[in-house]
Amino acid sequence: MKKYNIGILGATGAVGREILKVLAEYNIPVGELKLFASKKSVGKSILFRGTSYQIEEACDTSFIGLDFVFGATSNEVAKRFRDSIVSSKAIFIDNSSAFRLDSTVPLVIPQINGEDAVLHQGVIANPNCSTIIALMAIYSIEKLSKIECMLATTYQATSGAGALGPLELSQQMNAICNDKPLEIEVFPHQIVENVIPQIGSFLENGYTTEEMKMQNEGRKILHREDLCISCTCVRVPVVRSHSIAIELVTKEELSIEQIRETLSKENGVLLYDSPEKKEYPMPILTSNQDLVYVGRIRKSLFHPRGIVLWCSGDQIRKGAASNAVQIMMKLIGLVF
Amino acid sequence: MKKYNIGILGATGAVGREILKVLAEYNIPVGELKLFASKKSVGKSILFRGTSYQIEEACDTSFIGLDFVFGATSNEVAKRFRDSIVSSKAIFIDNSSAFRLDSTVPLVIPQINGEDAVLHQGVIANPNCSTIIALMAIYSIEKLSKIECMLATTYQATSGAGALGPLELSQQMNAICNDKPLEIEVFPHQIVENVIPQIGSFLENGYTTEEMKMQNEGRKILHREDLCISCTCVRVPVVRSHSIAIELVTKEELSIEQIRETLSKENGVLLYDSPEKKEYPMPILTSNQDLVYVGRIRKSLFHPRGIVLWCSGDQIRKGAASNAVQIMMKLIGLVF
Repeated sequence: MKKYNIGILGATGAVGREILKVLAEYNIPVGELKLFASKKSVGKSILFRGTSYQIEEACDTSFIGLDFVFGATSNEVAKRFRDSIVSSKAIFIDNSSAFRLDSTVPLVIPQINGEDAVLHQGVIANPNCSTIIALMAIYSIEKLSKIECMLATTYQATSGAGALGPLELSQQMNAICNDKPLEIEVFPHQIVENVIPQIGSFLENGYTTEEMKMQNEGRKILHREDLCISCTCVRVPVVRSHSIAIELVTKEELSIEQIRETLSKENGVLLYDSPEKKEYPMPILTSNQDLVYVGRIRKSLFHPRGIVLWCSGDQIRKGAASNAVQIMMKLIGLVF
Repeated sequence: MKKYNIGILGATGAVGREILKVLAEYNIPVGELKLFASKKSVGKSILFRGTSYQIEEACDTSFIGLDFVFGATSNEVAKRFRDSIVSSKAIFIDNSSAFRLDSTVPLVIPQINGEDAVLHQGVIANPNCSTIIALMAIYSIEKLSKIECMLATTYQATSGAGALGPLELSQQMNAICNDKPLEIEVFPHQIVENVIPQIGSFLENGYTTEEMKMQNEGRKILHREDLCISCTCVRVPVVRSHSIAIELVTKEELSIEQIRETLSKENGVLLYDSPEKKEYPMPILTSNQDLVYVGRIRKSLFHPRGIVLWCSGDQIRKGAASNAVQIMMKLIGLVF
């Protein structure tokens, strides 16, 4: 079996480490493995399939001989190395938001628009985590009848802010339990026992950068330039897995039974909707796995063609690492 | 100044205690004060304005001589004592949901439909906490142009489940900090580091009892039988204050400036909307006070006449105790 030489840019962060975990779990045939991080991590090593790999600092010649480079860094670092990765003939599957809306870069959720991946010119972008989770949940509905408009209200986990996010939540929980003052560094306000309606920075239209991703990226992934999505993104004191309340209006009226039936056959999605048994998606259920759980599916009360639902998914797995690895699998013809 | 004889049914619970606090803070001229609770609290006493009051068990003759009785009990207890309170000529201002949709009972938010209170036949109902907070936030908009439809997605605090709610959150936080097993009693699932999309029980249409209150009670309070509200209610690991993301469509197009201007003059509401300074409503800001904070006001992306906003308010204060005391103030002509 052919082996693939792989690089990970930002290997020591939350997403970088998860990519390594997913590569192992999915039995990806990895040949050479190069782990890149910032200067301060050089000298450290990370274990992969029993072998210890040294962290290197990337330079322009680092990517020669690699087949795929996974990006798990800031936009700045992704931009800095894009050209050297592409000219090394490696395919750059990038998690940052730097290239997502670039018309030469496919933006891919393999279960939805996997065929777009093959049109790449060296770079493929991984969508925003909440966008991936929301679209995985509603894609069955879009296939049954085009979505006219959509509203998404998120409950986003602290790990969406990187590895320091859950650490801050944990430190603040400890401070409250031990009656000590809270320290606030990662989030704009206290996150323990609070919810914060700000993720990203504010734009002129009153939305945050994070909120606009749902519409901007959703349009590109679904090939629906006309799709309107209003979004409110909120940080909640959860460690892992984003949850999203979604309301949408379809062009034709659909029955709940139709939606359930299609959803139950979907790859990557679990219909988890037995509220009478207290079974509905929740972050404590969906963490550390790739399935996006969908439940609480019901008719809207505000529009005859409206549907309301609720979903949860692990934003580091399907929202980032697993989706990126699935893009690679799509390109090399592996089943996911 | 005339003094009023007051009874509190359920005086030892979270809302009952808060009513006492509000009566004192608002300088209500209280004459006789009778505190009722279940048999197991008899013998205990509660301090009010420096005087200690014994807890009594209520019976049918307990209410004779009282002017107002505040109900802060279950529906069952409220129903059990309704007739004896009314026949004692006391006005029963009840926090339970037992009589809210009864056509002979006004359902009142004093700032919105205070004039309905005077039509009472002995009983006035206090609305659901999330409904009060949401309607306080959107009432200015309804005055500018009728609301066609509305979507509400809630982030509800643990204290909405009574005094045992925050206790369970605190115990579960301690268990996590000390690596001990979690105990789950009050909520259907673990609430620490989780969000639970269930408050109340499920109805045949897939909504919970809590979710239907927003539309059912909203219609009655606003005198808008045609108003459509879809709601998703979610419990979050917060101690106090509910937050709500609201999207609505008005009959005429409104500008954000118009809405801000009207909101800024509203009694009981604080326009708190300077996101560039990280100023938006949050539970840690709005607790232990009566103002409902409104912010993140922006144009919807899904409808040309759509508005999106975010609000937080203390559901034990304005969502229950303060609203009930304000109903009394409205009836006796005190300014609030």
